[in-house]
Amino acid sequence: MKKHNFSAGPCILPQSVLQKAAQAVTNFNDSGLSILEVSHRSKDIVNVMEGARELALEHLGLQNKGYKALFLQGGASLEFLMVAYNLLETKGAYMNTGTWADKAIKEAKLLGNVDVVASSKDQNFNYIPKGFTIPADADYFHCTSNNTIFGTQMQNFPDTDAALVCDMSSDIFSRVLDFTKFDLIYAGAQKNMGPAGTTLVIVKEEILGKVSRVIPSMLDYQVHISKDSMFNTPAVYPTYVSMLTLEWLKDLGGIAEIEKINNAKAALLYSEIDENPLFNGFVTNAEDRSKMNATFTLNNDDLKERFDTLWKSAGISGLNGHRSVGGYRASMYNALPLESVQVLVDVMQELKRKA
Amino acid sequence: MKKHNFSAGPCILPQSVLQKAAQAVTNFNDSGLSILEVSHRSKDIVNVMEGARELALEHLGLQNKGYKALFLQGGASLEFLMVAYNLLETKGAYMNTGTWADKAIKEAKLLGNVDVVASSKDQNFNYIPKGFTIPADADYFHCTSNNTIFGTQMQNFPDTDAALVCDMSSDIFSRVLDFTKFDLIYAGAQKNMGPAGTTLVIVKEEILGKVSRVIPSMLDYQVHISKDSMFNTPAVYPTYVSMLTLEWLKDLGGIAEIEKINNAKAALLYSEIDENPLFNGFVTNAEDRSKMNATFTLNNDDLKERFDTLWKSAGISGLNGHRSVGGYRASMYNALPLESVQVLVDVMQELKRKA
Repeated sequence: MKKHNFSAGPCILPQSVLQKAAQAVTNFNDSGLSILEVSHRSKDIVNVMEGARELALEHLGLQNKGYKALFLQGGASLEFLMVAYNLLETKGAYMNTGTWADKAIKEAKLLGNVDVVASSKDQNFNYIPKGFTIPADADYFHCTSNNTIFGTQMQNFPDTDAALVCDMSSDIFSRVLDFTKFDLIYAGAQKNMGPAGTTLVIVKEEILGKVSRVIPSMLDYQVHISKDSMFNTPAVYPTYVSMLTLEWLKDLGGIAEIEKINNAKAALLYSEIDENPLFNGFVTNAEDRSKMNATFTLNNDDLKERFDTLWKSAGISGLNGHRSVGGYRASMYNALPLESVQVLVDVMQELKRKA
Repeated sequence: MKKHNFSAGPCILPQSVLQKAAQAVTNFNDSGLSILEVSHRSKDIVNVMEGARELALEHLGLQNKGYKALFLQGGASLEFLMVAYNLLETKGAYMNTGTWADKAIKEAKLLGNVDVVASSKDQNFNYIPKGFTIPADADYFHCTSNNTIFGTQMQNFPDTDAALVCDMSSDIFSRVLDFTKFDLIYAGAQKNMGPAGTTLVIVKEEILGKVSRVIPSMLDYQVHISKDSMFNTPAVYPTYVSMLTLEWLKDLGGIAEIEKINNAKAALLYSEIDENPLFNGFVTNAEDRSKMNATFTLNNDDLKERFDTLWKSAGISGLNGHRSVGGYRASMYNALPLESVQVLVDVMQELKRKA
């Protein structure tokens, strides 16, 4: 039976990418060797690392604009720390939109003065704060563009003199934005880009080198830049699969094309959530709803067993909500086809007919 | 043509492991999904993470002895920092046996007082220092069991009241030792254990929690222990392939069996290096020679082109020495068959006949 993978991450990747990724494990670039057993300093692997970095910049329109791309290890969780280590001198300004932003705030506080300038904690993070002020003495403003757990997504990013830092782990490469507005973007690969184990960091070089503390080598963006992401042995395979996914996106027409598909998927599912009397969306402001992760609940818990049986029988997986929110979460990352969303909507309608 | 992969790392992995690893990329555990696209919280992946940790402890004889195993990201390079963050209060004692030890020392110095109690820098690291004293007030003693670049390997480890910390990146699981002697062992996966992208850490819990500094979450061993290596999304695939390799080693008979094969490979190559008048070993003390990485040079540079052509024609790859040493380096990790070493020895003898 065809699988419809709504997993929140690690999550669905394009089938063509997975075929190439499997091939490379037995015979990489017709070398007779596995990609897992060749030196990271070999020409073919250096090409992979360079290709991945170039494609990332190209998709975001950031080539030749003073930005560097890095593929590092440690996930967004290590970036929470690295951002503060590299940028926090006087004050870090943060927006708190949920679990991940909260963790970023916690790590930054170990390094210096942190000002939480906006938060949606008062309503269990079911909206995106607006109308806040970033202090003039802030070194940077940190935000999370998409919140996987709560299903909210930022539509607008503030104009500020502070460096604009954004955790885009769960919506990078999903929509067109003016990425030149950002000074530092980071993203764990395991949503729209690849498997778990590598983290994309895009940084405008001019913001670095301004803090007075000594930065340990592995936490220093300038060290990684000076070594082209190869200061130490990188996570070769996760980066390779990310490169394949970025090539797939390019063949498809890039971010502008995938955005149309993502918009269609989100429109289809959110209309059903709104129109079907059995379901309630968790995020009430329509403009704050995430196009990546739709969170919703059943109005009547008695229907849970029937609904769960229906969607599982339809080949759907990964639909359970996060424990902080409950209910359901449909993650519709780039590689999820519209067809899968239609299958979910059909199941929701079937439940209504039978209820 | 059959390949003989002498790469220093990432390096050769068992063929049976690579076959299973490729299969999992298209259809993991007959789920119809790729291992790259399922949640790290799913039962199958939790089993992988637990299995890898258990197998690591089992191979080293450290089950139920107060040790925890972790699969983290960032390689040995991040461990250089984490060791100091978690253990350095009064003083860290270090042995300097080359590039990697030197980097560990550099990062530790950022956190506190470091005493380099022994070094072989005076002879470009071609031996292992002996007869040194570890200060009574040292929190820990740090050493590198095997030095990939220079081709030296420790045979004995000091008895000390300080915590014994060892970077075993390039010889873990290759030989029988009394591993209960160690308090913290770490190893990047990409030699004897798996592909690049995951790092095994084995730590005796009782040595943790004794420093006064606040440790950032991602650098805190206790945080990772409390979350069973899943504080954040782990490098799932590299850990899975490591688990497969540890299963392969178990099927083979474990460390005791692989040690016999490793001894046979090293004996075969070093006899040829010693007996063949065209070659010189870089490491002069026989007892300090690494069984993982044999470093040697040609006596006559004029023969270089002929020798390089010969070994390449024989299907050998990865034989060039590191730039710090020059010459050649034959890395004979666990998965390299004796047959490959024989092919190299045959080539060395052929050169002698033709020279």
